[in-house]
Amino acid sequence: MSTLEKAFPWEDRPENSKAVMWRYSQNPVIKRDAIANSNSIFNSAVVEFNNAYAGVFRCDDKCRRMNIHTGFSKDGINWEINELPIEFIAGNTEMIHSDYKYDPRVVWMEDRYWITWCNGYNGPTIGIGYTFDFKTFHQCENAFLPYNRNGVLFPRKINDKYVMLSRPSDTGHTAFGDIFISQSPDMKFWGEHRHVMSPAPFEDSAWQCMKVGAGPIPIETKDGWLMIYHGVLKSCNGYVYAMGAALLDIDKPWEVKYRSQPYLLTPETPYECMGDVPNVVFPCAALHDKETGKLAVYYGAADTVTGMAFAQIEELVDWVKENSL
Amino acid sequence: MSTLEKAFPWEDRPENSKAVMWRYSQNPVIKRDAIANSNSIFNSAVVEFNNAYAGVFRCDDKCRRMNIHTGFSKDGINWEINELPIEFIAGNTEMIHSDYKYDPRVVWMEDRYWITWCNGYNGPTIGIGYTFDFKTFHQCENAFLPYNRNGVLFPRKINDKYVMLSRPSDTGHTAFGDIFISQSPDMKFWGEHRHVMSPAPFEDSAWQCMKVGAGPIPIETKDGWLMIYHGVLKSCNGYVYAMGAALLDIDKPWEVKYRSQPYLLTPETPYECMGDVPNVVFPCAALHDKETGKLAVYYGAADTVTGMAFAQIEELVDWVKENSL
Amino acid sequence: MSTLEKAFPWEDRPENSKAVMWRYSQNPVIKRDAIANSNSIFNSAVVEFNNAYAGVFRCDDKCRRMNIHTGFSKDGINWEINELPIEFIAGNTEMIHSDYKYDPRVVWMEDRYWITWCNGYNGPTIGIGYTFDFKTFHQCENAFLPYNRNGVLFPRKINDKYVMLSRPSDTGHTAFGDIFISQSPDMKFWGEHRHVMSPAPFEDSAWQCMKVGAGPIPIETKDGWLMIYHGVLKSCNGYVYAMGAALLDIDKPWEVKYRSQPYLLTPETPYECMGDVPNVVFPCAALHDKETGKLAVYYGAADTVTGMAFAQIEELVDWVKENSL
Amino acid sequence: MSTLEKAFPWEDRPENSKAVMWRYSQNPVIKRDAIANSNSIFNSAVVEFNNAYAGVFRCDDKCRRMNIHTGFSKDGINWEINELPIEFIAGNTEMIHSDYKYDPRVVWMEDRYWITWCNGYNGPTIGIGYTFDFKTFHQCENAFLPYNRNGVLFPRKINDKYVMLSRPSDTGHTAFGDIFISQSPDMKFWGEHRHVMSPAPFEDSAWQCMKVGAGPIPIETKDGWLMIYHGVLKSCNGYVYAMGAALLDIDKPWEVKYRSQPYLLTPETPYECMGDVPNVVFPCAALHDKETGKLAVYYGAADTVTGMAFAQIEELVDWVKENSL
Amino acid sequence: MSTLEKAFPWEDRPENSKAVMWRYSQNPVIKRDAIANSNSIFNSAVVEFNNAYAGVFRCDDKCRRMNIHTGFSKDGINWEINELPIEFIAGNTEMIHSDYKYDPRVVWMEDRYWITWCNGYNGPTIGIGYTFDFKTFHQCENAFLPYNRNGVLFPRKINDKYVMLSRPSDTGHTAFGDIFISQSPDMKFWGEHRHVMSPAPFEDSAWQCMKVGAGPIPIETKDGWLMIYHGVLKSCNGYVYAMGAALLDIDKPWEVKYRSQPYLLTPETPYECMGDVPNVVFPCAALHDKETGKLAVYYGAADTVTGMAFAQIEELVDWVKENSL
Amino acid sequence: MSTLEKAFPWEDRPENSKAVMWRYSQNPVIKRDAIANSNSIFNSAVVEFNNAYAGVFRCDDKCRRMNIHTGFSKDGINWEINELPIEFIAGNTEMIHSDYKYDPRVVWMEDRYWITWCNGYNGPTIGIGYTFDFKTFHQCENAFLPYNRNGVLFPRKINDKYVMLSRPSDTGHTAFGDIFISQSPDMKFWGEHRHVMSPAPFEDSAWQCMKVGAGPIPIETKDGWLMIYHGVLKSCNGYVYAMGAALLDIDKPWEVKYRSQPYLLTPETPYECMGDVPNVVFPCAALHDKETGKLAVYYGAADTVTGMAFAQIEELVDWVKENSL
Repeated sequence: MSTLEKAFPWEDRPENSKAVMWRYSQNPVIKRDAIANSNSIFNSAVVEFNNAYAGVFRCDDKCRRMNIHTGFSKDGINWEINELPIEFIAGNTEMIHSDYKYDPRVVWMEDRYWITWCNGYNGPTIGIGYTFDFKTFHQCENAFLPYNRNGVLFPRKINDKYVMLSRPSDTGHTAFGDIFISQSPDMKFWGEHRHVMSPAPFEDSAWQCMKVGAGPIPIETKDGWLMIYHGVLKSCNGYVYAMGAALLDIDKPWEVKYRSQPYLLTPETPYECMGDVPNVVFPCAALHDKETGKLAVYYGAADTVTGMAFAQIEELVDWVKENSL
Repeated sequence: MSTLEKAFPWEDRPENSKAVMWRYSQNPVIKRDAIANSNSIFNSAVVEFNNAYAGVFRCDDKCRRMNIHTGFSKDGINWEINELPIEFIAGNTEMIHSDYKYDPRVVWMEDRYWITWCNGYNGPTIGIGYTFDFKTFHQCENAFLPYNRNGVLFPRKINDKYVMLSRPSDTGHTAFGDIFISQSPDMKFWGEHRHVMSPAPFEDSAWQCMKVGAGPIPIETKDGWLMIYHGVLKSCNGYVYAMGAALLDIDKPWEVKYRSQPYLLTPETPYECMGDVPNVVFPCAALHDKETGKLAVYYGAADTVTGMAFAQIEELVDWVKENSL
Repeated sequence: MSTLEKAFPWEDRPENSKAVMWRYSQNPVIKRDAIANSNSIFNSAVVEFNNAYAGVFRCDDKCRRMNIHTGFSKDGINWEINELPIEFIAGNTEMIHSDYKYDPRVVWMEDRYWITWCNGYNGPTIGIGYTFDFKTFHQCENAFLPYNRNGVLFPRKINDKYVMLSRPSDTGHTAFGDIFISQSPDMKFWGEHRHVMSPAPFEDSAWQCMKVGAGPIPIETKDGWLMIYHGVLKSCNGYVYAMGAALLDIDKPWEVKYRSQPYLLTPETPYECMGDVPNVVFPCAALHDKETGKLAVYYGAADTVTGMAFAQIEELVDWVKENSL
Repeated sequence: MSTLEKAFPWEDRPENSKAVMWRYSQNPVIKRDAIANSNSIFNSAVVEFNNAYAGVFRCDDKCRRMNIHTGFSKDGINWEINELPIEFIAGNTEMIHSDYKYDPRVVWMEDRYWITWCNGYNGPTIGIGYTFDFKTFHQCENAFLPYNRNGVLFPRKINDKYVMLSRPSDTGHTAFGDIFISQSPDMKFWGEHRHVMSPAPFEDSAWQCMKVGAGPIPIETKDGWLMIYHGVLKSCNGYVYAMGAALLDIDKPWEVKYRSQPYLLTPETPYECMGDVPNVVFPCAALHDKETGKLAVYYGAADTVTGMAFAQIEELVDWVKENSL
Repeated sequence: MSTLEKAFPWEDRPENSKAVMWRYSQNPVIKRDAIANSNSIFNSAVVEFNNAYAGVFRCDDKCRRMNIHTGFSKDGINWEINELPIEFIAGNTEMIHSDYKYDPRVVWMEDRYWITWCNGYNGPTIGIGYTFDFKTFHQCENAFLPYNRNGVLFPRKINDKYVMLSRPSDTGHTAFGDIFISQSPDMKFWGEHRHVMSPAPFEDSAWQCMKVGAGPIPIETKDGWLMIYHGVLKSCNGYVYAMGAALLDIDKPWEVKYRSQPYLLTPETPYECMGDVPNVVFPCAALHDKETGKLAVYYGAADTVTGMAFAQIEELVDWVKENSL
Repeated sequence: MSTLEKAFPWEDRPENSKAVMWRYSQNPVIKRDAIANSNSIFNSAVVEFNNAYAGVFRCDDKCRRMNIHTGFSKDGINWEINELPIEFIAGNTEMIHSDYKYDPRVVWMEDRYWITWCNGYNGPTIGIGYTFDFKTFHQCENAFLPYNRNGVLFPRKINDKYVMLSRPSDTGHTAFGDIFISQSPDMKFWGEHRHVMSPAPFEDSAWQCMKVGAGPIPIETKDGWLMIYHGVLKSCNGYVYAMGAALLDIDKPWEVKYRSQPYLLTPETPYECMGDVPNVVFPCAALHDKETGKLAVYYGAADTVTGMAFAQIEELVDWVKENSL
């Protein structure tokens, strides 16, 4: 799938750094006011598309309404984002009610791009849609009952079923959160729910001791599905969102084989520590180049802007295995 | 289905009373210590079975562990409850993990008795099982992701699908709660989730202003599905659970046609106001006699014992229509 | 004013009792279902009227809507309560919006009966109305901005102004509460607000350590205004409302001269400890006979029914002075 | 009133900007340590005075005690702030108790400058005072019972009465807040309270979904009273205060004719996002030049320093009308 | 020590009962108004004394102030309680400050009766005192820093040190609670703190899943120290306090050998379910007769009155071993 | 003790500043990533050692596990911090369990360096250890029962006993906190606990109105023990930690002679306002030069890095006396 080697968004690891993941030096790649009416553009999803890149971007407008917009880029770094949100037409249902949309993920599967997001239907739940061309978008049945967030599809069927990660939630600033997996024969009816992983004990890995949720589309490796995820700690001054990674069994992806005890990235820079929600690093998408093993992760920073960070897939996989909880 | 007229559990409305629903004078019908090891026996489900009655009873033991037991009765009033909880064998899945079971509902459909309950699987969700004989019980896939409670099946397929009511929740003493409906082609995969009803505005109907949840199996009437449900108010001294009723559209049961503004029953008696959880009236099952229109509702009282209350179906339906929110 | 000596509601202190206040042996005098549609009848106000007694009663209906109804009695004990709530017409304003009404107080002043209550106008505040005949009722401007409760008028002007006690609150189950006084030249515009009293320190008088609020219309005595009030304690199982008394300066009623360290009455009986809000004794009205010094206090019990308790005014005043905080 | 055209504090809209309101490039205009003993100087009020400008400034000292100080400026930008807080003498009352003073507003009316502030009298309420010369200050009766904040006078009588906006509150970090209006014949007794506006629904305008409160003195325009106000959102990491605007009916100022769905200004700069209370933009005063239509808004930033922002009145009014909720 | 066999307070197990512990049929043995000024008399301690019984009783007065009083009885059932609280003189310290005293325990050791209680010294901590004659009482240094409750001494030195159980707490209605042990060479300086036991997992033993605390003085048996304790569950309507038992290692009493999964006693009767704090069974003392093995436990009921329950020590020990968590 | 005058870490007060304490211009002196695996290095302790300086540093690793590391410096500014945490061997006990260690203090007394820290033993409590050489470390019995933080030893025995300050806490982000003192004959058993100081009233000194806790080892002066401490304010956006100072009686150190009403230092710089816990200034150690009176305070900034601030002891003592609460 990856034939765009030259255009792959990339920056080498800084000299003297030994970090397994490093930030893009020109972060944030997308500013909060990248379109005229935006308050912030952050937890967003990108994929390869037409020998370039397309994306679905969470843009909160100046009313602080949450919605998702398309965007396009030749290099994965400079993005043209549509001033208007995506309008959906009916997909596998007529019931396409949506009070708001946020935190999209996008994945190519079989013949189309599938999009999932947090959809407002009497509370937050997981919306599903698809597009063939990033012009016309179809909205399907919500996957689950409310209250749910961070629905993330696997990039292919497993055991002949569609598989989705999610994090059941409540109606507010959920103070708990485990990752579960659900399965579907048809992208409409879901079942065979399995628990994947809980927050870690405070003494062992405090950065992920309050809640955890899946990030980008999992990446298939020879050591299992690489799942980059966020973990949350609660300090006396609020939540801190950091990023880690795990390896899930290829055929039974509810089995966690390895899970990073240290974080990969935690809020450190001003654009991560200061903004609408201070102290947030929230990964939602990743591009990877199979030939070179390059990985570019897109993450929301302080719920305000979008940053990028880089890693080498093999190094990252080894690091997860060597630093497993 | 109802040929047991003589044995139908019943007591006429007290003289001078004009109430549409009235308590059984010998309440509670099941005491907290009806079996040797029980702390309490309350939110419980009964059905006609073999020319008599069978039931699935929530029995909390003296460790305050929650589980469900079978019970049998000839008159619906005097019950023999099994000292041991139900043991399930694998139904449509091998994954029959269960940390606890509570608040069962039972319904005859097609060829068997289906049981739903609140099942402990990394938090509360809706468990499903079935039995043909109340001896051997099969456990199926959980219907939904956690966190959910009060899963109640309709007594027949609608639009060729199984249909279930439920109340998405959180990990604790959920302070919110709407009723939703979900649909399934096969009792395994669920989708087409629809919102049914929210708590009522405080000014209009305060007894149901914090959360609502379905109770007994809905009863089909010419005016729609009669859904008896509980509503909750929060006072400065805790929650008060009362009982009301609504009528749902026969073919689109997510459409509420009528919904009672007054409650049917609220905690008033010592066995409802005093106990492990004071001030709880919580309906979970109902027997009805189609020929006479008699309705006997079983409800948990103070999360400690089981009470009964009676009504005439037609009167009740009329009352809902005349007292609709 | 008191010429009804024979009919004054009264029961002598039980033998062997030394209590300064004692309960009526036939409590509750008003049951929760004293009218057809009531869920509860409790915090209520009574006055002498036409050689008998009239009252304004808080009746919550079976929708748990709160409203106030008239009632009449020849002996102060047996009451005929109107099935329908009071309907108000415009008094000194056209703006008589009211989402709900509760906890009324009534007082005769100058030429009419003034009624105050907790009025729902974008939150709870103090409503004011008047009647000449307990048939036609006029609603005036709300006294204060929300959020406020327990507005209680003094029975005559002081320093040529109307004077009202109240307890500023918040939008929910207020966990704080001081008594303030406000003054008005015209029953429409209010000012000259003064602080009267705060909750007591936990170590000194725990029953009134969370909030306090005025009860019946203050009674003029030679030792000052006798203000009977409620105080609230918060246990791990909720609030406990008890009754105490204080003496306020006759001319500067914001000055507390004496205030009871012990309570007068605390929830002890089943009808006070069990009900919609367990553990509530909440005084709202008092009849007193100047010649005999008899005092009959009406109080809400468990937010469900109405009870009575008796005292001798002089004894009570002495007790407050001797047991002052 | 505005004859100081040259000295009006102003900076043109930046090129390329289309914003209806823009920040002063030299913000913050008042630093946290502008006087020797100050911890912070922020929510503050300014007016034209003696062919120059005077102001009343909230200065929290290094004990974090809150008080108000006078300050003077020739250009509205460079301020000399008095090292000592204002001392008040008795105005229309002897009762001028004040535990603390904060968030002042100032307005010229009739013959004097009226000042309102949040006054500590057994909790926060609205203090009133006046001065003729910014040297001698008179303190009047508090307008309302506690608990209240953000009392803002209209700049002239309406229907022959003084009119004040306020936001009833509770004893702490109030998590709710509607704007109300009150009226007074004499600046001493207040009544005829009317509801003005509530927080907006989260789905429509999340930046103002938790509480709203009036800011500068309303400005009379041909389209109604221009009320600049703050709105608050609660994220998982605390409150975010932003600024919006509404138009109120000239004669019935409790009627909202237009209200901005988007915010005007939200915390974006380091001095707004970082400080004693991160993420606060809180307007308290505005200067406007009738001839040129220039508007200079003074706002507290991060509860630490004072910033300025500019707009053209007509543009702003049009923007409110075109972007109304 | 036990030579009073005839007078031992006792009632045989009811016929048909198989319970290991059963209530006294004449409960409550001490009413809330057993002395003139008491609001309630509950968590209280008794011991053998002078061929009869003496006790230290928690009496809350009608100000709801908490204090401890002596009492005496010939049969352990009918008690004469002193109208006045105990006055302490200096013991091993001059610092005998005490804002309040509650929940006493008493034990004979070596040459005197030691008393421990919850002592108010800038928050609740463990007070220590002693008496030789129940007339003169000496107060010693508080054992620990605040915040602590339920300090319970062992009846003899272990490893040559005094040993005390306690439950570290916070400043309010502590929502957590583990039992710890501390050791002292001299009853003045304490150290060598060890963790004894935590609340149990909800799934295993919900009645003790929120907090646990020691009750009566531990009783030495051949199977270890028998520690009767309370456990707490939190329902949506508040806390439920029940009673259980554990066996601790004789020489290393911080090692739990057995711990009851079921409760021994849970609130079931009106005097346990209704009162100042509904749903409380709280054991503080036990008498045991070594020869007959009879055990009489005194427990507070609903924080209002005192109840008794009986068991046979050997049966109880066996039951703990057979029903261990 | 101080013979290293030239190497004393110092920077003169900036010109134009009149502050009694001023920041080091090159702050932070220790960055968050000063060792390879650290997430943050902050609340840390330093002492003179071998003609240079040694320290014990709180280093949270990238798992956000808390531990303490040694470090060494010739100038007190440039530190070599050990990559590995300190490993303790048994001191006066075999029980050296530790789930985590944080916020160390170090003091030379008699013949060795004593270290105290917050030690994880079934919750946070005060750990004690010692070293002679900063190579071998011995762990002793925990001083107190959980839950406790900020244990700080005095630098010599007082009245022949070891004396320690501490702040009893709860299991989470403790929202209260007083400073207490405890005494020990042997560093093993502790008693004679005395209250030292509470948070200040909000109206008088809001920066220290929620909790207070001791910081560096108290410094003996002719005016008493100089105790530098932290105080906490709760804003609607979280806690703010600032620094103040008090003077305690030399012989009765539980008696506060003077206590600063203003703070010494409050979060103002980006490295104090932004980081893992925004708005934290938390002093844990101080070096002082007796001959010159120079004082260098080390403090944690934003729970992320370590800063330094300077003062002249005599000036500081005078300032406390002149600005006393």
